[in-house]
Amino acid sequence: MTRVHNFSAGPAGLPEAVIQELGPHLIEFSDAGAGIMEISHRSKQFDEVIQSTEASLRRLLAIPDDYEVLFLQGGASLQFTMAAMNLGSTLDPIGYILSGHWANRAHIEATRLGQSAPILWDGKSSDYQTLPDANTPELSRVGTRWVHYTSNNTIYGSQFHEPPSDSNQLVADMSSDIASRPIDIARHAVIYAGAQKNLGPSGVTLVILSPDAIAASRAKSGLPSMLNYALQTDKKSMFNTPNTFGIFALSLVLNWIETQGGISEIAKRNRFKASKLYAELDASAFWRPQIETKARSLMNVTWRIADEALESTFVKESQIQGLVGLKGHRSVGGLRASIYNACPAESVDALISFMKSFEKRYG
Amino acid sequence: MTRVHNFSAGPAGLPEAVIQELGPHLIEFSDAGAGIMEISHRSKQFDEVIQSTEASLRRLLAIPDDYEVLFLQGGASLQFTMAAMNLGSTLDPIGYILSGHWANRAHIEATRLGQSAPILWDGKSSDYQTLPDANTPELSRVGTRWVHYTSNNTIYGSQFHEPPSDSNQLVADMSSDIASRPIDIARHAVIYAGAQKNLGPSGVTLVILSPDAIAASRAKSGLPSMLNYALQTDKKSMFNTPNTFGIFALSLVLNWIETQGGISEIAKRNRFKASKLYAELDASAFWRPQIETKARSLMNVTWRIADEALESTFVKESQIQGLVGLKGHRSVGGLRASIYNACPAESVDALISFMKSFEKRYG
Repeated sequence: MTRVHNFSAGPAGLPEAVIQELGPHLIEFSDAGAGIMEISHRSKQFDEVIQSTEASLRRLLAIPDDYEVLFLQGGASLQFTMAAMNLGSTLDPIGYILSGHWANRAHIEATRLGQSAPILWDGKSSDYQTLPDANTPELSRVGTRWVHYTSNNTIYGSQFHEPPSDSNQLVADMSSDIASRPIDIARHAVIYAGAQKNLGPSGVTLVILSPDAIAASRAKSGLPSMLNYALQTDKKSMFNTPNTFGIFALSLVLNWIETQGGISEIAKRNRFKASKLYAELDASAFWRPQIETKARSLMNVTWRIADEALESTFVKESQIQGLVGLKGHRSVGGLRASIYNACPAESVDALISFMKSFEKRYG
Repeated sequence: MTRVHNFSAGPAGLPEAVIQELGPHLIEFSDAGAGIMEISHRSKQFDEVIQSTEASLRRLLAIPDDYEVLFLQGGASLQFTMAAMNLGSTLDPIGYILSGHWANRAHIEATRLGQSAPILWDGKSSDYQTLPDANTPELSRVGTRWVHYTSNNTIYGSQFHEPPSDSNQLVADMSSDIASRPIDIARHAVIYAGAQKNLGPSGVTLVILSPDAIAASRAKSGLPSMLNYALQTDKKSMFNTPNTFGIFALSLVLNWIETQGGISEIAKRNRFKASKLYAELDASAFWRPQIETKARSLMNVTWRIADEALESTFVKESQIQGLVGLKGHRSVGGLRASIYNACPAESVDALISFMKSFEKRYG
């Protein structure tokens, strides 16, 4: 079969080696005499899976020993609620940086809980085409112990290239750039990420918690058990049955990252892929990259065609050429190439070559 | 390879035909040029998956047209909270039938939300060895609009053979017997079930909602979006990215049920498997089945050996014979055979034959 060049924003392409490796485990996993989906989450075989997955993550992301790692369900959208429920309070509200659609949704969920959720910065007036500098004083406002940000804005195509504040404890939605570059975990109280972009299939949510975040959670009373960080930590993600297949698939993706040379090598490749694509976009007025240069995402590259009427033709023709998922998010239009870890350099090359030909024909 | 006889309580064995069918779809699904885990949840290919999955369920379970079907995440444990949050109120609390561990946990989550959650019946004094009759007046107490029950008690091995009340709207945790027999859906406001016993892999939760349940949810304000039944219904389970792989696997299990002859045929087989096993348990004082006859589960058969000291030997020897998962839940001890839909009659025969030999050697 021919695999397409997959530029979907998520669920996104996975490393082909991982997919090939997964198949046989559906039928027989380890020495269980049953497939990976059919073994108890409390079996010794699955216990080894979840322990080795956590160990890989700790190694790859350099997670400090006193941080906890959880594999939950519900995606980033459930974390919008959980982070606010476990950390936010009247005395210590979470401040929000509104850098785009998902950041705004995180803020909405905090206000639904009745929290004050002060807004520290709002990109709405610039149509989310830029991000605040890390030294913007508002981001470190006194009295805002926690600051929430979205490290990469999947829809708009912007990305924080360093954490936005160094005087607060950060709460980060890293769904679309987790494991794509080194992270300074110690500056974060909470990091969460849906797996379906850089880590595996949809249905698994990675959550990394600092001791302070767990202490804040433990101090709350009446939290629903499933939404309680401290309880989930005490139960090692096994308060109830986790997504066992998803966690196993995630473990294979982590192994793949290690065989590729780890996060620093992956980050190098991601910079290389993105810089090639942005260079093409900057080379001609035919293309209009969307985001202010300093805030450009290495994961989701967004652009318009100067003649916007050509965009639907671009999407149609690219699809025929086996380039899939290039239509911008329905809320913003335009074009978007999601080039996560698993997107091979060859796919970016194929896209650039198609763009050159498209420009020649329509420019 | 040799597949074991899998008696795990869940995640449990899946039909071998389903597992064989799944493999190739990991690499290429439909005409997508990508695997089932790698396509957008908003692609036309996945749209067909989720629509056909819902259609199969509606056909198989005879779900009334005005009921809604959701595919969520978080398992039954998150539904304990969601059902109470969306339905329960001071005026109209949910009454609870405490028939075992999971029923009790559902009740605990309602009280955590500050709800009154009246207890209608409590099996604690009988050590959960029996269930109330459907005509027990307390179960239909006036002023309890909603009544929550656990249709099958996985840990204890008891099962309601008819809904416990006909004058209230039922809220049912059917995690361990969904799709194992016909259900009178119309008597239910909410039915929920984690998939990992009778429907597919862990990480997908089926929720079926009556118009009244959705109306009750819609009347609430301030619910977290992810936990809002009405919103999830409006968004057709796509408020955020669902567990796409899990839903696809579930669809194959439903197709398998249809090829086997549908729910009535499956129910017949389940009755046959369970009756054989109970007959063996009743045939000799060597075995001590645990549950009062009228309340025996067709899904989870629980028993002790009269000489309890032999139980660990039973578990050890059965494992060597390729019979896996027969140890009772750690909270109750003893022995348990989970014989869900996908458990073949041959596995039950193998178990009975092992039991006969065990009794001969140790009886």
